[in-house]
Amino acid sequence: MEYDGGPFVGWQRQDTGPSIQAALEDAVFALSGERVHVQCAGRTDAGVHARGQVAHFDIAAEKRIEEVRGAITFHLKPNPIVVIAAELAPKGFHARFSATYRRYRYRILSRRSPPALERGHVWHVPVPLDVEAMGEAAAVLVGTHDFNSFRSTSCQAKSSVKTLEELSVIRCGEEIHLDVGARSFLHNQVRILAGTLQMVGRGQWSRADVAAALAARDRTRAGPTAPPDGLCLMEVRYDGRSEADGDAEEPVDED
Amino acid sequence: MEYDGGPFVGWQRQDTGPSIQAALEDAVFALSGERVHVQCAGRTDAGVHARGQVAHFDIAAEKRIEEVRGAITFHLKPNPIVVIAAELAPKGFHARFSATYRRYRYRILSRRSPPALERGHVWHVPVPLDVEAMGEAAAVLVGTHDFNSFRSTSCQAKSSVKTLEELSVIRCGEEIHLDVGARSFLHNQVRILAGTLQMVGRGQWSRADVAAALAARDRTRAGPTAPPDGLCLMEVRYDGRSEADGDAEEPVDED
Repeated sequence: MEYDGGPFVGWQRQDTGPSIQAALEDAVFALSGERVHVQCAGRTDAGVHARGQVAHFDIAAEKRIEEVRGAITFHLKPNPIVVIAAELAPKGFHARFSATYRRYRYRILSRRSPPALERGHVWHVPVPLDVEAMGEAAAVLVGTHDFNSFRSTSCQAKSSVKTLEELSVIRCGEEIHLDVGARSFLHNQVRILAGTLQMVGRGQWSRADVAAALAARDRTRAGPTAPPDGLCLMEVRYDGRSEADGDAEEPVDED
Repeated sequence: MEYDGGPFVGWQRQDTGPSIQAALEDAVFALSGERVHVQCAGRTDAGVHARGQVAHFDIAAEKRIEEVRGAITFHLKPNPIVVIAAELAPKGFHARFSATYRRYRYRILSRRSPPALERGHVWHVPVPLDVEAMGEAAAVLVGTHDFNSFRSTSCQAKSSVKTLEELSVIRCGEEIHLDVGARSFLHNQVRILAGTLQMVGRGQWSRADVAAALAARDRTRAGPTAPPDGLCLMEVRYDGRSEADGDAEEPVDED
């Protein structure tokens, strides 16, 4: 699925406003008459976008997969949420627990003027950033570490040890893209990584400061949590296979 | 300037709704207390965007150029219009009449699902398009031709002969970008080019059909006018120098 996170309180159903989960569950109800729980791979926060979110649900009604895709897309209107592809899942598949790789992109707009066209989709940092220094500091964070400094204080995960497979810093015209990949992430981890690398880009922090922040295992030692606007869930993989590619395959019964 | 054309009736001041010109003229008034006419390089239609629009105005008040940029950006809020760069123009400069090259991009989203993230910024064509065939047909249109088939029936230009310097068809993931450059364009020319090449991409028209449409000099023989959403004014040049680069230079007195 692709969605614009701007108008939503986030993926998760909440009393405080519209969520992507509730919109999807309503669409599934319109299709099947069944009230289901839709589970996703990456529970994005308010304002965070997705180009390659994956979700699953179980319904008793027998439907052709093409009918499911079409009907859900139809019933999701006018929400800015679309289903790119749908397929019958193998038994035991869970969008969240079966996922083996998640890739996010964090977009920074580094120029004096605020965005007009990308408003809500980039973090505006109105000064030049040293992309090379950011890339060097990013290398410190790749690998298996205790990322306790890089998670929200409300993060529920039991362990804060994670393996960052990829953290690339790429200049793209006036934008800087942070491409971040791992099996799983802590709450706000990518946004705190972005907030921290931005400090390096401004020349206020060195690579050694980032290493010290990581070693401290203390949230107050890392940089600020960057705003949700710049964040987008790009891709989720299952056993190395990209679901975001959208090419349907025959499901394999894994039981 | 960069702007999101979505909420506007177009560049030009009209009684029917908010225009980019009126927003700018109000911002100049807030800066200088002077009611001026702001002139631009490309008078974009309703819903058409810009990343590199150029405009000029004359005020009597003496202001530092940095103050002009900052104040206009400030007074344009909350409109999705920003000033990327400002500079003192040489005497005799006219944003429209001095321009020697304009480059537009037309974005087509070629996939089954409608856009969620790029809504209002792409033309959604829900079938696969043959990009190679589109590129070959585009070559027919490059050069100096009578583009009478490729202009709105309400186009005011005396001559419909124009020189298309560039018409590239580039695949960019799920999008197809038409990059179109010329000294000047007819009304709706880029959108009719996009609508016509889309017919080729669908396999409904051949390269020879496009050549015949051009030769006919008859609007009814070309393809449909593609929607404004996909169109963006990317760059305007003056004597080969790109104003969209935004690097200020000392003005040269040409009188």
